[in-house]
Amino acid sequence: MRSPPWFDKDEQHEPQTKAGLHPLEVMIKAKVAAMLEKKKLLGDGQADQGKFVLKTAKGTRDYGPKSMAVRESVLKIVTDAFKRHGAETIDTPVFELRDVLMGKYGEEGGKLVYDLQDQGGELLSLRYDLTVPFARYLAMNKISNIKRYHIAKVYRRDQPVMTRGRYREFYQCDFDIAGQYDLMIPEAECLKIVDEVLSKLEIGEFYVKLNHRYILEGMFAACGAGSDQFKTVCSSIDKLDKQPWNEVEEELIKEKGLSKDNTEKLGRFVRLREFNPSMGNVELLDKLMEFEELARNERFKKGIEELKVLVNYCTLFGVRSIRFDPSLARGLDYYTGAIYEAVVPNILFSRIPEALEGVNLEANGEEQKGLPVGVGSVAAGGRYDELVGNFIGPTGPKGKEKRQDVPCVGVSFGIERLFAIMEAKMQIEQMQVRTTETQVFIASAQKNLLQERMKLCGQLWDEGFKVEMAYKANPKLLTQLQYCEDRLIPLVLIVGERELQEGVVKLRNVKTREEQDVPLTELVSTIRSVLALI
Amino acid sequence: MRSPPWFDKDEQHEPQTKAGLHPLEVMIKAKVAAMLEKKKLLGDGQADQGKFVLKTAKGTRDYGPKSMAVRESVLKIVTDAFKRHGAETIDTPVFELRDVLMGKYGEEGGKLVYDLQDQGGELLSLRYDLTVPFARYLAMNKISNIKRYHIAKVYRRDQPVMTRGRYREFYQCDFDIAGQYDLMIPEAECLKIVDEVLSKLEIGEFYVKLNHRYILEGMFAACGAGSDQFKTVCSSIDKLDKQPWNEVEEELIKEKGLSKDNTEKLGRFVRLREFNPSMGNVELLDKLMEFEELARNERFKKGIEELKVLVNYCTLFGVRSIRFDPSLARGLDYYTGAIYEAVVPNILFSRIPEALEGVNLEANGEEQKGLPVGVGSVAAGGRYDELVGNFIGPTGPKGKEKRQDVPCVGVSFGIERLFAIMEAKMQIEQMQVRTTETQVFIASAQKNLLQERMKLCGQLWDEGFKVEMAYKANPKLLTQLQYCEDRLIPLVLIVGERELQEGVVKLRNVKTREEQDVPLTELVSTIRSVLALI
Repeated sequence: MRSPPWFDKDEQHEPQTKAGLHPLEVMIKAKVAAMLEKKKLLGDGQADQGKFVLKTAKGTRDYGPKSMAVRESVLKIVTDAFKRHGAETIDTPVFELRDVLMGKYGEEGGKLVYDLQDQGGELLSLRYDLTVPFARYLAMNKISNIKRYHIAKVYRRDQPVMTRGRYREFYQCDFDIAGQYDLMIPEAECLKIVDEVLSKLEIGEFYVKLNHRYILEGMFAACGAGSDQFKTVCSSIDKLDKQPWNEVEEELIKEKGLSKDNTEKLGRFVRLREFNPSMGNVELLDKLMEFEELARNERFKKGIEELKVLVNYCTLFGVRSIRFDPSLARGLDYYTGAIYEAVVPNILFSRIPEALEGVNLEANGEEQKGLPVGVGSVAAGGRYDELVGNFIGPTGPKGKEKRQDVPCVGVSFGIERLFAIMEAKMQIEQMQVRTTETQVFIASAQKNLLQERMKLCGQLWDEGFKVEMAYKANPKLLTQLQYCEDRLIPLVLIVGERELQEGVVKLRNVKTREEQDVPLTELVSTIRSVLALI
Repeated sequence: MRSPPWFDKDEQHEPQTKAGLHPLEVMIKAKVAAMLEKKKLLGDGQADQGKFVLKTAKGTRDYGPKSMAVRESVLKIVTDAFKRHGAETIDTPVFELRDVLMGKYGEEGGKLVYDLQDQGGELLSLRYDLTVPFARYLAMNKISNIKRYHIAKVYRRDQPVMTRGRYREFYQCDFDIAGQYDLMIPEAECLKIVDEVLSKLEIGEFYVKLNHRYILEGMFAACGAGSDQFKTVCSSIDKLDKQPWNEVEEELIKEKGLSKDNTEKLGRFVRLREFNPSMGNVELLDKLMEFEELARNERFKKGIEELKVLVNYCTLFGVRSIRFDPSLARGLDYYTGAIYEAVVPNILFSRIPEALEGVNLEANGEEQKGLPVGVGSVAAGGRYDELVGNFIGPTGPKGKEKRQDVPCVGVSFGIERLFAIMEAKMQIEQMQVRTTETQVFIASAQKNLLQERMKLCGQLWDEGFKVEMAYKANPKLLTQLQYCEDRLIPLVLIVGERELQEGVVKLRNVKTREEQDVPLTELVSTIRSVLALI
């Protein structure tokens, strides 16, 4: 039995701290090398086989045991938080009737939906997110209140950027509260969850930007941009976290048709947080109300008041990471109230693409050129009160009753990005990842002890221990011990002829290399107590 | 706040034990009623909305919180077993390049693959099982040994039978051991896992049929059916668990072209277990060797000897559920050695379709007519030594070296069937299913205590407790207590004005309705110790 060879190629290298190199730089170099290697391998494979290139579909990847172990540790923190808040879970099919998805993601999004081939029967598409299937589920089952989470993969035919964790198949991890409840209480719980998850992941500093659709609408209206321009102005403002103001300003004037004066005014509004970096949330909300043209807009005023309530509730819940930011303009059509986005200004993560600049990789056929550097948004959400109602439509005997809306608010974690951050963190901190939970390995000291090993194995499995043994009739002792050291298995039971005659087995602590003879009759209790101490 | 209304419609009814009716019959009647109700609802919806029918794609379903809770409990038992045996987990994309899947599932299977629409770029298909993607993963990453499990959904455009748990989207739950190891040791571990999982699920009697490709080949050859007829004869023999011998015999003669004599001979071989129901495995293997025309076939002999080794290893592992059965003829092309299939002769499950006979349901558009009654196979697998090599092809500098095979053996649990059996069992035994893990509910006795509740909630979440509160500013106490009883939440903290002034809260045990005042300073430790006792 050899040392396990199944770690992903780009996971295998150990981060080295060579003279003068930051561990991160070493890691990046290794990553690049691994990718070039991969490319070479792929090329070779193609020539040799003549059949077809052995690869996964564009924008997708396999997850080897080590990646999966990291993912499971991140997902555990997230699901634990959801469960701590009393959420149930549901699951919906990976594809929906095409009509269910149509018109929900704007023009841009619609183009990215994967359609299934018409093989007779219904027209189907892969889900693009979990929110629309959730709304369909509520409407179809006439459910008017639920607190649920849903962790599943979604599909977008986007340009993939594998090095930055942007895939065509990726996990979403959603928590939503549906129901007619009192103002801002569910929102506060969503923000509490974001705060808990990001704290527990220990990925460094983070904060949660907060805004409200009414505030955006009010600011835009005061600058001559009516509701028909809401989306398009949002999409410009939304770029402020990646582009300087003068570029956004130019876009607003040249492409969106705002006047120079109005654009300047809008700049004063949306950049208020930027101009007052140390100001508290309530102070900043009050400051925005000082603009007369905003304050006389009732809807705007309502937005400000609602956020004040939310800020207070967050304080009561012990959430200190929120920052009101009038430049937060999440573009999704369906938001109707508060919106938020958690940001990790993580230097680790944002430096990786820089280091790769100029390297034209085609790992697994993906092109990496000319793509914008992201900002480290790791969770986002908001209130969407009308999405479910859109599915239900007007009800009642004549179809003329009022809409049956099911108010919803939720948050979605950018779990792929969290995985990537966590993997980078673990490599830099040289943390060892166990891919199995094996507690005891049953080894043999001499030949012809297979039957004894099997009997012991069976007994220990039946007692609930996590146990492995070599699948060889006569494995070498050293190979077996080496396997345990490689896989971080804490205990080895060594079966030997002398010991069997005496009715004992040798119990070895892999780390300390201490050994003791344990009578077979006391084996279970001894292992249990030794494991309890490790 | 109302009693939670989000249970699936067909889950909501309580099993009643009306006079003279078996609980199962009550359950079935309720299920039929719920389905007819669902059909009606769907019809109405269509008429009212005018837009489109709100439904999931044919052959798929949503899983509500209660179904998910049952699924998670089943999956936990399965994954615990996999982890107890030292398995790692991997994940592969939901779609593969079409070429990867082509020609792996025979003519029948190939027709059932879901293709994605050609939207420019690669031609993709949804995975049909997890075995072919696993083999592709091993070949692509040049992995020659791994013990992995993979739990994920697969897709088949089959005729769905929703009432019997046959869907177009369903979970597979695979455990496989890849690597060049000694004879039958990995097989024995697979069978041990099947034994452990089915025992722990407590779904009643089960046994595992065992056979070997070489034994099937030997028996067929002795009856004039060569290797070109292997698959087609297998498919007839495979029907023996659902059809009487005379029907299979007729098929073999009329459709497969076997002579009357040869068919009779084959019957004597494959029905050996049927004729000797109480015979032990080794005895039965020996008995088959008594047929001279079989014994002189070296390959057949090897099959018999290998199974004898496996039977011995199973005994050492404490597996008592295996039954050598020469009529087991799993049709998959890729098996090369031992094959096995676990069967639950479960009366509960097999009676449901009978009761539904004559009822022409169209729940969610599925037709239920004219479909064969299944036999309760809940796990199956075997050895497939050549599948990975087929992907790798011949290697070496000139592509003329010998094939790079990666021997594999594995088992796949029919997890959807296990879910269905478990759901039926829970309904019949009237077991209550909790869909959340909430430990403490924070209630208020009077109005205007929202802020106090929120503060307490935040503190208890931070301490790691699973806590909920009403999303209303002024909920009624009775409504809050009723919610806890409905959801089986064990503890309620009641915040009241009198208590707050005294620096205490009331802690109520929901089941016993006992209440005690707890000082706020001792709250965390008190809750911890009370929960430990519940």
